[in-house]
Amino acid sequence: MLKVYGDIQSGNCYKVKLLLSFLDIEHEWLHVNILDGESQTHEFLKKNPNGKIPTVEFTDGRFLSESNAILTYFAEDTHYSSSDKFGRAKIAQWLFFEQYSHEPCIAVARFIQFYLGMPIERKAEYEALQISGNKALALINDQLSVTPYLVGEQISIADIALYAYTHVAHQGGFELALYPSIEAWCLRIKTSPGYIAMA
Amino acid sequence: MLKVYGDIQSGNCYKVKLLLSFLDIEHEWLHVNILDGESQTHEFLKKNPNGKIPTVEFTDGRFLSESNAILTYFAEDTHYSSSDKFGRAKIAQWLFFEQYSHEPCIAVARFIQFYLGMPIERKAEYEALQISGNKALALINDQLSVTPYLVGEQISIADIALYAYTHVAHQGGFELALYPSIEAWCLRIKTSPGYIAMA
Repeated sequence: MLKVYGDIQSGNCYKVKLLLSFLDIEHEWLHVNILDGESQTHEFLKKNPNGKIPTVEFTDGRFLSESNAILTYFAEDTHYSSSDKFGRAKIAQWLFFEQYSHEPCIAVARFIQFYLGMPIERKAEYEALQISGNKALALINDQLSVTPYLVGEQISIADIALYAYTHVAHQGGFELALYPSIEAWCLRIKTSPGYIAMA
Repeated sequence: MLKVYGDIQSGNCYKVKLLLSFLDIEHEWLHVNILDGESQTHEFLKKNPNGKIPTVEFTDGRFLSESNAILTYFAEDTHYSSSDKFGRAKIAQWLFFEQYSHEPCIAVARFIQFYLGMPIERKAEYEALQISGNKALALINDQLSVTPYLVGEQISIADIALYAYTHVAHQGGFELALYPSIEAWCLRIKTSPGYIAMA
């Protein structure tokens, strides 16, 4: 059976869980505790030399890592991708935006506040992340005030990827009430058939 | 004609130029000076609300941003992608690795040293980037000691994306001589038909 190495509280891992649930793909979930160093063991580094989760192991023993590459793989030829070349490119645009301009702000602010309990030596970094994180949220909100999902009328892996850390952004100090189009979009995703919660 | 807004000295922009050159796709290059704020003007933000280069404008007036999404778009159904689903996923894995674990180290160290002239207040950050950047280079070198290109026997957009900042990593203080498989790979890319230099 397909194996997924991850931690469901990590947005990067949860997004994989959410897509597999939407697609009803059977898998075994193997919990990896990064705070205990479980992603840095010799054994784990054979699965992913970069020492990161999520990592998936296919039944033939091959591995794939990078959450958004995993989403792209499983979404191919499903309605979580697009049948149109430009549509696929816009989905990819949002996926790269997520990893470069969104996750490093929202997820890291959440990590500092929610996991580390806001240590004083990371307070300045946390404050800076509020600015860049709110910029990312505003960009998402602007798009969602025009279209119901990030790339048009249909949910896609762009939405799943951005939803993962956005819907728990309050745990990183972000006020989602400032972004009404994001709140409405979160509700649309939460009420989609096959939805599974992070917790 | 296809328009590309970018700065050829930026690896993220250069990688687009390199792929378009390899594929012999005619385009107009419009220089954007980010240090002069040209990516933050009202006019530019209409093209890419995230205010980043590269951004491409198609002849029908549609826009696409995020360098690796642009690469993915133009590589589709060419031999710079893969005809195999798992091959495409591994290419995507390297593209996301590049934006999350490579570019934020190598490109930022280069920016601090090469563009800003190593201001004292960014020295600590620069030193930290040497550690994470060398980790990224070691991972690339390990793969290239097994296969001639990052995903198997053929050059792909994974190589083009990683090559862009790797081949100028010395401008960020990295010693490429420590990574012989990277040096051999750089030479293979530089001597590929259609290659165009950054400068």
